[in-house]
Amino acid sequence: MSLNPVTPAFIADLEAALPESAIRETAPHYLEEPRGRWHGQAGVVVAPQDTAQVAAVIRAAAAARVPVVPYGGGTGLVGGQLAPDGPAPVVLSLERMRAVRAIHPRENLMLVEAGAILSDVHDAAAEAGLLFPLSIAAKGSARIGGLLATNAGGVNVLRYGNARELCLGLEAVLPDGQIWHGLKRLRKDNTGYDLKDLLIGAEGTLGVITAATLRLVPRPAGEGTALMVVESPAAALDLLSLARDHMGEGVSAFELIHRAGLDFLAETLPDIRQPFAEAPEWFVLVDIGLARGLDPATALETLFAEGLEAGLVSDGMIAQSEAQRHDFWELREQIPEANRLIGALNSHDISLPLEAIPDFIARAPEHIGRLGPFRINCFGHLGDGNLHYNVFPAQGQRREDHLGARDAIQRCVHDLVHEMGGSVSAEHGIGRLKVGDLERYGDPAKLSAMRAIKSALDPLGIMNPGAVLRAV
Amino acid sequence: MSLNPVTPAFIADLEAALPESAIRETAPHYLEEPRGRWHGQAGVVVAPQDTAQVAAVIRAAAAARVPVVPYGGGTGLVGGQLAPDGPAPVVLSLERMRAVRAIHPRENLMLVEAGAILSDVHDAAAEAGLLFPLSIAAKGSARIGGLLATNAGGVNVLRYGNARELCLGLEAVLPDGQIWHGLKRLRKDNTGYDLKDLLIGAEGTLGVITAATLRLVPRPAGEGTALMVVESPAAALDLLSLARDHMGEGVSAFELIHRAGLDFLAETLPDIRQPFAEAPEWFVLVDIGLARGLDPATALETLFAEGLEAGLVSDGMIAQSEAQRHDFWELREQIPEANRLIGALNSHDISLPLEAIPDFIARAPEHIGRLGPFRINCFGHLGDGNLHYNVFPAQGQRREDHLGARDAIQRCVHDLVHEMGGSVSAEHGIGRLKVGDLERYGDPAKLSAMRAIKSALDPLGIMNPGAVLRAV
Repeated sequence: MSLNPVTPAFIADLEAALPESAIRETAPHYLEEPRGRWHGQAGVVVAPQDTAQVAAVIRAAAAARVPVVPYGGGTGLVGGQLAPDGPAPVVLSLERMRAVRAIHPRENLMLVEAGAILSDVHDAAAEAGLLFPLSIAAKGSARIGGLLATNAGGVNVLRYGNARELCLGLEAVLPDGQIWHGLKRLRKDNTGYDLKDLLIGAEGTLGVITAATLRLVPRPAGEGTALMVVESPAAALDLLSLARDHMGEGVSAFELIHRAGLDFLAETLPDIRQPFAEAPEWFVLVDIGLARGLDPATALETLFAEGLEAGLVSDGMIAQSEAQRHDFWELREQIPEANRLIGALNSHDISLPLEAIPDFIARAPEHIGRLGPFRINCFGHLGDGNLHYNVFPAQGQRREDHLGARDAIQRCVHDLVHEMGGSVSAEHGIGRLKVGDLERYGDPAKLSAMRAIKSALDPLGIMNPGAVLRAV
Repeated sequence: MSLNPVTPAFIADLEAALPESAIRETAPHYLEEPRGRWHGQAGVVVAPQDTAQVAAVIRAAAAARVPVVPYGGGTGLVGGQLAPDGPAPVVLSLERMRAVRAIHPRENLMLVEAGAILSDVHDAAAEAGLLFPLSIAAKGSARIGGLLATNAGGVNVLRYGNARELCLGLEAVLPDGQIWHGLKRLRKDNTGYDLKDLLIGAEGTLGVITAATLRLVPRPAGEGTALMVVESPAAALDLLSLARDHMGEGVSAFELIHRAGLDFLAETLPDIRQPFAEAPEWFVLVDIGLARGLDPATALETLFAEGLEAGLVSDGMIAQSEAQRHDFWELREQIPEANRLIGALNSHDISLPLEAIPDFIARAPEHIGRLGPFRINCFGHLGDGNLHYNVFPAQGQRREDHLGARDAIQRCVHDLVHEMGGSVSAEHGIGRLKVGDLERYGDPAKLSAMRAIKSALDPLGIMNPGAVLRAV
């Protein structure tokens, strides 16, 4: 079943079906992605104002067999948001659908359109005295539709879950142009197959999310943050167990950071305050949010004292003010930017069974070392078993001289992850970057079920062809 | 595509493919369901010992186009576990696959086979010092496979989620006989479509779950339970908000109970201790589990005092011992048994947006009253918006004389629920009981997507035909 490119006649059809304002200039950002691996194409960029217009675009594309690439904030890291090859598609941007349709504080939920920017959703929740706990570094640009389509993760998954767990219902346009009205305000609804979770994580290949019911949570009464120097990744895991024994769900984030992160920050962003006089090999950022009646500083002090007693931690500091909490988080959140400035050859977004992490961290450098003298910066969301395992040229070497090693490095890391029961895409998704990885490491029964579902829901193959599954 | 009944030749094929022990007597319980609405048929009952044998059964059934009805603990309340009509099927019981394959306490998870009984899973988690928080009244018989296939709910969903949220991975046999090896030990894994959540809640119509990775949680350091008399369902909702403001995730269960529940218990189970000298119209059972450093009794006293101050509660009692906690819970958990003894005409398992609940509770009796002088017992998991709304003949009247009113009562309740944005199946599923309701109230776009998925994954239609979707 071959697809057709956007033609002037097709654009004329769209112009007839949509208000003039829906057709956009093809600005460069629609064709770029943050890591600069691909350049996209666009036959036309449309930005509908409402769900009916989205449906009209999809129906027109289905009638003409023209591919559609849904576009959110453009922050995806696996190339799911652009079409580098194939017939020139419709780029369907949700940027004009960014309304918060309703907030129900007593129900702890809000109804929001797919184009809403994450930080605006944070603000709207805060105004209602509540918290929308999904948070990622790109929160100022990422849009809800894309966050759901990729099942985004971030720093608070340990406590509150992925985007998936924070979504109670969806409105979406399916590949045949039908609108699914699934914006329920329900916690329990066992009426048929879970279409919501099928669309979440499908990266726009099974339909376009146009709005969502998002779960909000009460703000913890008191919050606190600490940095603690740990003896090893294994000690960090034991410290996490200890923290959860003490505080249950009160542990909001538990981030593992290697000295390389501090070195890279010192090298590229010298204005970021270095917290330690002497940089430790491993440390963790622990963030907690507790119920009334508990003092976060005391809880962190107790955790540190018990960790010290057990030989897990050797040094640490507890934030004494909101400004200091912010500094600690800034340190963590600027590491990806430092990585970008240094210039990673590969950024591996992997997850492992928690117990396997120390072993992986011990073994991987040796495997990579066989390919050359590369530098590694390993950090991540330890509580979720999610590491960002980034590989760089040796100090003083140029990234450009080592691009040829990329595939071998990725293969080496992913082979080891797979062998140890892990995932080669923890939170970023498959996009176009990891289609081959999914074919190599994915379960054959699951892959054949995925292909059957894709054919069933999108028999023409117009929705984001080439993302997740190879275009047929 | 018509299906064939089990024949002697088909049984001979199974006997050749499986060890003798796999073929079972067709005991009566395989053909019954708790509410006695239907009687099932079985061409043969098989109970495989491992996943490979399950796959052999499915392949044989696919080759002969014989229907397969997966059978767990037989406790489902919507008839999903039996085939009252159509060609005589294979009843595929998971009862011999009940091993706990592994427990990883540091990872807070266990790998367990589908035939494991829920209370055995509770015990295994407790032995590891952890909690598997899914709990329903039928925990002594219900099996993990069925609990997942129906996305079971229960009393702790408020805090810990449905069966869906407690499952990290699945092993399953798909309708073509392929085994999906998806028993990951990962918190984050964005590699392709969410097949796990598609099988969860599909009630055996898209495949047979054979094993699962279950999420465990740390046991709260201290637990407490209280009964509090509330002025109204609206006051109960305000009290819930207050409790969550105080304790965040510490609120484990929040059950609304009407005086009718106490009356029914007094009438049918007089040994159950009545907690109040004078039965109140509405009261709630509040169950909390707190982190170290907080005293549950103090927290409940504070909640009560603030509720009293705000005019939400007027009386209450806080359990002073584990025995009293048990008594409070026993009271709640015996209400379904009292209902059974009184003899409900209809048991409606509904959910509503939280804010709509007081209005629904106010309006529904008037609607039902137009059909006759029926009695109502309304109770449920208020924190999840899930009510069990049960309708009985007037006192002194015989159930048998009013069975003709059943459909009209159900239609009346479900119409109102649907009009108010609710669900006609909150936690029990569709099974065979609510296929018509799903067609009437379901979103057309979702229904057509469901039918497309069913045809794609089970083109022969052998998997539990007639459940969820009408057999074609």
